[in-house]
Amino acid sequence: MSNAPAPMRALILGFGNVGKRVAEILFEERDRFPGLGALELEVVGIATRSRGVILDPEGIDMREVLERIRRDGRISDSVARNTDLTALIRETSFDVLLELTSLSIERKGSPAVDHVREALWRGKHVVTANKGPCAFAYRELERLARERDVRFLFESAVMDGAPVFGLARRALLGCSVEGFAGILNSTTNFILSQMEEGMEFADALSEAQRRGVAEADPRHDVDGWDAAAKTAVLSNVLMDAEVTPFDVERVSVADVSISDVQAAAKRGERLKVVCRAGRLHGGLHASVNIESFPVSHPFALVQGMGNILELQTDLMAPIRIVQTEPTLTDTAYGVLRDLLELADVA
Amino acid sequence: MSNAPAPMRALILGFGNVGKRVAEILFEERDRFPGLGALELEVVGIATRSRGVILDPEGIDMREVLERIRRDGRISDSVARNTDLTALIRETSFDVLLELTSLSIERKGSPAVDHVREALWRGKHVVTANKGPCAFAYRELERLARERDVRFLFESAVMDGAPVFGLARRALLGCSVEGFAGILNSTTNFILSQMEEGMEFADALSEAQRRGVAEADPRHDVDGWDAAAKTAVLSNVLMDAEVTPFDVERVSVADVSISDVQAAAKRGERLKVVCRAGRLHGGLHASVNIESFPVSHPFALVQGMGNILELQTDLMAPIRIVQTEPTLTDTAYGVLRDLLELADVA
Repeated sequence: MSNAPAPMRALILGFGNVGKRVAEILFEERDRFPGLGALELEVVGIATRSRGVILDPEGIDMREVLERIRRDGRISDSVARNTDLTALIRETSFDVLLELTSLSIERKGSPAVDHVREALWRGKHVVTANKGPCAFAYRELERLARERDVRFLFESAVMDGAPVFGLARRALLGCSVEGFAGILNSTTNFILSQMEEGMEFADALSEAQRRGVAEADPRHDVDGWDAAAKTAVLSNVLMDAEVTPFDVERVSVADVSISDVQAAAKRGERLKVVCRAGRLHGGLHASVNIESFPVSHPFALVQGMGNILELQTDLMAPIRIVQTEPTLTDTAYGVLRDLLELADVA
Repeated sequence: MSNAPAPMRALILGFGNVGKRVAEILFEERDRFPGLGALELEVVGIATRSRGVILDPEGIDMREVLERIRRDGRISDSVARNTDLTALIRETSFDVLLELTSLSIERKGSPAVDHVREALWRGKHVVTANKGPCAFAYRELERLARERDVRFLFESAVMDGAPVFGLARRALLGCSVEGFAGILNSTTNFILSQMEEGMEFADALSEAQRRGVAEADPRHDVDGWDAAAKTAVLSNVLMDAEVTPFDVERVSVADVSISDVQAAAKRGERLKVVCRAGRLHGGLHASVNIESFPVSHPFALVQGMGNILELQTDLMAPIRIVQTEPTLTDTAYGVLRDLLELADVA
C-alpha cells in the first residue's frame, strides 16, 4: 500500500518564459522547495507555435526538454503551425490542461478561450496563466467547469503568483467585493518611474525593452490593454461582472509627457496607471486611468516592477496586497499553486 | 426536501466588544451583508465573567440579549464567577465553541487554552479571537483537532479579519514561509504617531485610552506583550515553530522618549514597533523591537490603527498585506469568516 498519489498528467500549450520556469522548478530545482512535496506532474504533451511540438503518452523527459530549449530555443523539430490545438486537446489523454499561450486582445482571447472550453468540456481540469479566458469568457467557462465537476484555475493571470484569487475564493469568504484599485501593469509603471528620473517616454520604453520588462511589441502594455484585461478579469471573478477589456475605459501612457510627470513631481506627486472598478448606478464601472498620488501614498510607493491591489469589501476596511519585486518565479508559482490545489482535490 | 442546512449551535465564552459586534452583524444587520447567506447560527449559551450567563438549548433570542447589554451592560442577572466554564463545555450540547475571552499572558493563555482543549477533545469545532491558544499551545491543539476530525480556527487573532491565516492555509499552498515582519499592535503605533505630533508618551497613552484604542490597563500593549503574543502565533502557525510569547525578544515602547522620536524625524525617519521572525542557525528567532524607517518606507506609512504584515517565502518575492483603518467590524469579520468556513465543511 503506497500513499504516493498517481502523478497528474499534463498537456501544456505554449512554452515561453513562464512554462519554462514552471518546468525548471518542478524538474530541476525541486529539492529547494519542500512545500511542493505533494505535487507529481507527468507531462504528456507540449505544443508551441514556434518552438516545436512533443507528445509522449508515457511521459516526456522534461530535463531533456529544458536542456534542448536552452541550447537551441526549441523543444523539438516538429512544428505546430498546422496543428489544430483544439483537436490535440480532444485526442490526447491527460488530466490537466496547462494553458500558457499569450493573450490576444484582437482575437478576443482566442484561441486560449477555445482551448480552455474544449478541455473543460472533456471534463479535464484547466490551469491558465493567460488572462484571455477570464477577461472574455469567465462566466461561461466557470459554469462549464462546475457542470463538468472540474476546476478552472488562473492564479497567475493577475499579480503573478500573489494569491489574489486564492484570497478571494477562500480567504474572503462571506465578504462582498464592492470595488478595487490597483497598479497591475509593470511595464507602464517602470516607464513612469524612468520618466521621473528625467527620461523621455520613447527612451524609457527602450530601456524597458532592453531590460526585458516590455514585450518587443509594447503596444499591449503601453496602450493599457494588459491593464484593461486584468481589470476585466478582476471584475468578472471578484465582482461577478460580465465585462471584457473592450468595456474598460482606457488611456494610453504614451499620452503622458515628461512635463506632466515633472509637474506632478513639483506638486509632490507621482503619476500612476491605475486599474479600478466599482458599482455605479446598479452596474459596474471599470477603468484604466492615469492618476496622481502624493509621494507618501501607498500607491506612489509602488515603483519599478511592483504591484498593488486594494480590495474594498462590505465587511472589512480596505485591505491591500503588495507585491514587491516579482520575478518569473512568482508567475511560475501562481501556476504551481493552482496545480497544488488540484493535487489536493484530485 | 429543503436545502437549508441545520443551524450551527454555538456556545459563546466571553461577550465583550467582539462578541457583541459578531452578534449585531448576524442578528441585527444581516440584510446588509449578502455574503453571509449560508451562515445560520443558533446560540445555545453565553457565559461571561462579569456580564452574566445565559443558557438555552432551544436557542437564545440574540436580539433581546443585545438590547439588554446595551441597556444595562449585562446579558443576564446570573453570574459566572463560580461557574466552571470547562464543566459547562463538557455538559452543554453544541457544535462550535466561540472562545472570545481575553488573553492572559500571566496565566500562559489559560483559561482559554483549557476551554479550547476541552471542546476539541469533545469533538467540537472551535473558533477563537483569543491569541492565547495559538500563542501557548498551537501544536497540541492543532494535533488534537486533527485527531478528532474537527476544525480549530482563529482568523481574528492577528490583524483582525484580514485573512492572514486563510491566506497561509490555502492561498500560499506550496510556499514555505521563511520569515515575516509586521506592525501588528495598534495602540503602540497610535502612541508613536501621537509622539511625532509632539505629544509626550504619557499624554499619547492617555489620548489612546480616551479614544478607546488602549485598554484601561495598557501594559499589555505598551510592554509589547500583545505584539509578542501575535509574533508567537504567526511563528507557530506559519513557520511550524513551538514558541510562546516568553520566547519572543521584546522591548517596551515606554522606553522611547519624545527626543528619540524627534531625532528620527530629523533623519527623515519614523519609529515603529515591529514584530519579526526568521530562521537562524537552524532555529527560529522572534522579536518585537523598535525600528526606524525612512518616511517613504511602506512600514513608515502605517499610521494610527493600521496594520501591515510582510511574508517572506521561498517561491515568491515578499508580499505585504496592509489593513488600512480596521474597526470592530473587521475583528468580527474574522470570527464570521471562520464560522463560514465551518458552515462550508459542516
